[in-house]
Amino acid sequence: MIRMASGWFYLSCLLLGSLGSMCILFTIYWMQYWRGGFAWNGSIYMFNWHPVLMVAGMVVFYGGASLVYRLPQSWVGPRLPWKLLHAALHLIAFILTVVGLVAVFTFHNHGRIANLYSLHSWLGITAVFLFACQWCLGFAVFLLPWASMWLRSLLKPIHVFFGAAILSLSIASVISGINEKLFFSLKNTTRPYNSLPSEAVFANSTGMLVVAFGLLVLYILLASSWKRPEPGILTDRQPLLHARLTCAGLGHCPDGCQDAAHCWGGEHGSCDDPGQHPLPYETWRWKGWSEHARWDSRL
Amino acid sequence: MIRMASGWFYLSCLLLGSLGSMCILFTIYWMQYWRGGFAWNGSIYMFNWHPVLMVAGMVVFYGGASLVYRLPQSWVGPRLPWKLLHAALHLIAFILTVVGLVAVFTFHNHGRIANLYSLHSWLGITAVFLFACQWCLGFAVFLLPWASMWLRSLLKPIHVFFGAAILSLSIASVISGINEKLFFSLKNTTRPYNSLPSEAVFANSTGMLVVAFGLLVLYILLASSWKRPEPGILTDRQPLLHARLTCAGLGHCPDGCQDAAHCWGGEHGSCDDPGQHPLPYETWRWKGWSEHARWDSRL
Repeated sequence: MIRMASGWFYLSCLLLGSLGSMCILFTIYWMQYWRGGFAWNGSIYMFNWHPVLMVAGMVVFYGGASLVYRLPQSWVGPRLPWKLLHAALHLIAFILTVVGLVAVFTFHNHGRIANLYSLHSWLGITAVFLFACQWCLGFAVFLLPWASMWLRSLLKPIHVFFGAAILSLSIASVISGINEKLFFSLKNTTRPYNSLPSEAVFANSTGMLVVAFGLLVLYILLASSWKRPEPGILTDRQPLLHARLTCAGLGHCPDGCQDAAHCWGGEHGSCDDPGQHPLPYETWRWKGWSEHARWDSRL
Repeated sequence: MIRMASGWFYLSCLLLGSLGSMCILFTIYWMQYWRGGFAWNGSIYMFNWHPVLMVAGMVVFYGGASLVYRLPQSWVGPRLPWKLLHAALHLIAFILTVVGLVAVFTFHNHGRIANLYSLHSWLGITAVFLFACQWCLGFAVFLLPWASMWLRSLLKPIHVFFGAAILSLSIASVISGINEKLFFSLKNTTRPYNSLPSEAVFANSTGMLVVAFGLLVLYILLASSWKRPEPGILTDRQPLLHARLTCAGLGHCPDGCQDAAHCWGGEHGSCDDPGQHPLPYETWRWKGWSEHARWDSRL
């Protein structure tokens, strides 16, 4: 049962990776095959970077970056490297997003087309603005060492909620964007959008893939048995993974440990019942970090 | 602190009610003032029912119905009436949705316009299909008495997740639908969509209100301190509300109870520490229901 639950998690990750890759590749193929490919010269071919980069940045990289703490490897040992990975992946997502916005604004300005008039653009720019606020606030509160534990525990659920909310807004923006693009591109043609030419079927399917990817990210993010265990609360998947990732993974057991299945917290842990023992004291040491290290493992 | 948390919940509900009413009223006003009003004759005025009924059904009533179990009044006493209310409100939402679909399909068929070609329609019909499956499965598993506790506890997190997922899909559909409608309506006019006439500003704002409403529903749904308490787990808002809603509300205390603040489970409860005491044994009695009554209070 435990192995099955753990297997489901990795199967979901495999599915997520496949769906995410397909979302990006399908969008590239749509722009390359039906919309004439890419350029960086203010033309419509420059616009074509916009859907690709927004899907890659605001959905796929953003979604993947959100799930860093769901990897069981992140549950034990120092938390800071995982925080840095979480922040770095989100920064990559944000840079892709900004380049995607530059592509559409440059195309609009070059062709004297109005900016930010459609609901798609209102929602999209709101999502990007919230993403920027979320990243800066996350960096200041959870990565820099000055914030108090009270502030971190107050903001953590808000940070998690807005993480999921921004992804939902991004998906709604992508859907309305694909819809809008197809109405623009497939008017005044022999086979308009309402006759469902192959481009329309392909792009609609890409939109549905983006939705499926987004829902899978939200499922993995919200499923309680895949969350980092809090002290005193363990789910069916967690004891096995902990045992395997700590003592068993290191190939030895700390002093006084009954056996590998009872030890907790890796090299620096002890051997109590995982359900009763607090999370391991972090060993990460760096100027300014030490006083936060203990609580850093949870927030 | 406890009163403040409780106050925040009711403030959120007040905001939710205002936002939901505004979403419906704004959509009605848009269709009435700028799109010529309503009719039921296959004309474009029949189409105008579509946005109103989809916003009312798939977003506002659906969102409100999802939150029935977050009301502290539903935490104590028989659970069946709350289940019936949850199912009934969702049924009203579903009926509004179906009438909204009839409006658009009839308009399309009357004007020989193709059905279900845009990404908006693909996503929307997927959301409605999932809603129908969710309602039927919920009715069969959680309302009818035949399902085992094992099946209920297996399906409950899936039911909750798909409840939130369907709302997210509905919001994405509504956004793409408003966007699409504005591109249709505001072309070949003296003030097209890209010049942001007052109708565009108003309808875009309506879309943003729908997004705000949806996010608030998801926040109330997912905020852990506003969930029905599980045995042994209490949040800061719950002890006060329980005490007030059970003994204090009834005006008396069962035998052996220290004082009103320590009693638990109302008339049929006892006076233990709420944090340690299991949820009250349900007193609802009806043919076929009795054996499920105890567990029914939690699933």
